[in-house]
Amino acid sequence: MTELVRIAEILEARKRIEGIAVRTPLLPCPWADADRPLWIKAECLQNTGTFKIRGAVNALASLEPRERDAGVIAVSSGNHGRAVAYAAARLGVDALIVIPHGSAENKVAATRALGATIVRVPAEEREQAARSLAAQTGRTLIHPFDDPRVIAGQGTIGAEIAEQARELGIEVDAILVPVGGGGLLCGIAVAANALMPGVAVHGVEPELAADAHDSLRRGERTTWPVSDTWRTVADALRSTAVGELTWRHLRTLTASVLTVSETAILDAVRTLADSAHLVAEPGGAVGVAAYLTRLDQLPAGRGYVAVVSGGNVAMDAYSRILTGWFSTGGAGGV
Amino acid sequence: MTELVRIAEILEARKRIEGIAVRTPLLPCPWADADRPLWIKAECLQNTGTFKIRGAVNALASLEPRERDAGVIAVSSGNHGRAVAYAAARLGVDALIVIPHGSAENKVAATRALGATIVRVPAEEREQAARSLAAQTGRTLIHPFDDPRVIAGQGTIGAEIAEQARELGIEVDAILVPVGGGGLLCGIAVAANALMPGVAVHGVEPELAADAHDSLRRGERTTWPVSDTWRTVADALRSTAVGELTWRHLRTLTASVLTVSETAILDAVRTLADSAHLVAEPGGAVGVAAYLTRLDQLPAGRGYVAVVSGGNVAMDAYSRILTGWFSTGGAGGV
Repeated sequence: MTELVRIAEILEARKRIEGIAVRTPLLPCPWADADRPLWIKAECLQNTGTFKIRGAVNALASLEPRERDAGVIAVSSGNHGRAVAYAAARLGVDALIVIPHGSAENKVAATRALGATIVRVPAEEREQAARSLAAQTGRTLIHPFDDPRVIAGQGTIGAEIAEQARELGIEVDAILVPVGGGGLLCGIAVAANALMPGVAVHGVEPELAADAHDSLRRGERTTWPVSDTWRTVADALRSTAVGELTWRHLRTLTASVLTVSETAILDAVRTLADSAHLVAEPGGAVGVAAYLTRLDQLPAGRGYVAVVSGGNVAMDAYSRILTGWFSTGGAGGV
Repeated sequence: MTELVRIAEILEARKRIEGIAVRTPLLPCPWADADRPLWIKAECLQNTGTFKIRGAVNALASLEPRERDAGVIAVSSGNHGRAVAYAAARLGVDALIVIPHGSAENKVAATRALGATIVRVPAEEREQAARSLAAQTGRTLIHPFDDPRVIAGQGTIGAEIAEQARELGIEVDAILVPVGGGGLLCGIAVAANALMPGVAVHGVEPELAADAHDSLRRGERTTWPVSDTWRTVADALRSTAVGELTWRHLRTLTASVLTVSETAILDAVRTLADSAHLVAEPGGAVGVAAYLTRLDQLPAGRGYVAVVSGGNVAMDAYSRILTGWFSTGGAGGV
């Protein structure tokens, strides 16, 4: 049984990602509720548009020379694949990306533009296809979340929040983190536990893809059907279950996983544009959606950080979200 | 004759704005031309949404106790007024803001929400109205650009760019700065001259409001009719002339003032959303517009910083810009 990721691995990852990943800003939100001060950790300003670059770079930079030469393979609805492709290009590693049908086309195009080879498969077959291709080609599979090197990479965000809160002289009581497979949440929880003891780390999921929330409620790792999770507008958070490794972290380290409605997600995307001047993809905005709507679980008198995890949204869908013309409930990429 | 602003005044201003203005990030743009690396100084992430807060805070914090008690007055099409209102609220000073008819309503509403008193006047009468009101009430007039305290405040951006370039280990050869009245450009030029000798500072203006470009070309301060400058979509840059003080800075300190078309401005707003995940207002995007279109004047082999000066754009107009449905050439706020 793999042990939990340790803070030393996160601090090591910080050195590896330096110069490739951006130390994204921790931005004050004077437009937010004055009794519940909010700061945004703006990972939508990250290279490749999401936090995923951190885990990808850390994983690829940790490979043995023989593994680097054989190349890597990744399964991804878009952001992880784009990040692995970018990290591979920067580190001189060959990358093959398996992308399920129905993924956001803007993300697929961006991944291809980075020089990676793309293979499209049905969403249900993606894991099996990747394992077969890895076995056939000798490439190392870079899992989007269930890999200690990836979790440690994402955890660098927690280390940066601790450092930036100190620099800015602000008091953080809780951190709100989007949950797909749970890698981001776990990494930040490890970092917060070590560097900001007493700070609560809350995961946030769409109600329509609430497998992590369900898992914590039941006390066991729970899988949702793809046909269910595929409904949410937050295409980055359509994973059907947290991983085995991320689950072991979650049940010991995470305060709770909150859920947010589709309406709340779209409202948060609009608020981020209008008030924070950040372009967030729906999956990236769920932390802010929780801040704006989960007043019962996120009380006044505390300081909140919302991690805005990504900004890779297609402009046509984005403009419809901003004007309120976007209709929720349909499948398909944003 | 007032002397030029000195670097010491800018470094003093940095201390005054600390804790109120954000040290905005200098963001790499891996999506830009690899032979002409670009970084964005993202002032659209600033408190109140634009750089204007820097000059406003520095001016208000420099007031004598007697002046503070009498309150301040400002003339502004929006962003300066909003910044003065915010600075006044934070520093406990009473503010009255004179706003010309036809200004962007989203900016007017934001200024009112900060607790300032609003007076609306015809655009042509705004300066006279402000002087009369200042004389009647004993308030200190905070000019949007032609004031050494305001220029020094805006110059803190240049000091931050120098510091951040050092931290990130990047080489900057030229800085692109939007020009309305010229306060931002002058402040940054003073800072660059002192802290980054050899770095060229280019102003950028809309072709439809190119009074600074015209002034440099003719060698004398030139005024455009309001009916001309009011045509540009970049409502933040509709000033009809640079100031007397900013002109004295410009003719000695600035490499050139480039101009950009309305189409280039709107394309830059879209690029900033899609690739940089920043919400920029048209006036804030002119530096990036110059980077994208003025290839003859901004050659390869050099490192560029574009100051994205603001993000206060109304969401309905913004979504139309993103989809290419926005028609240029008409007056009115964005």
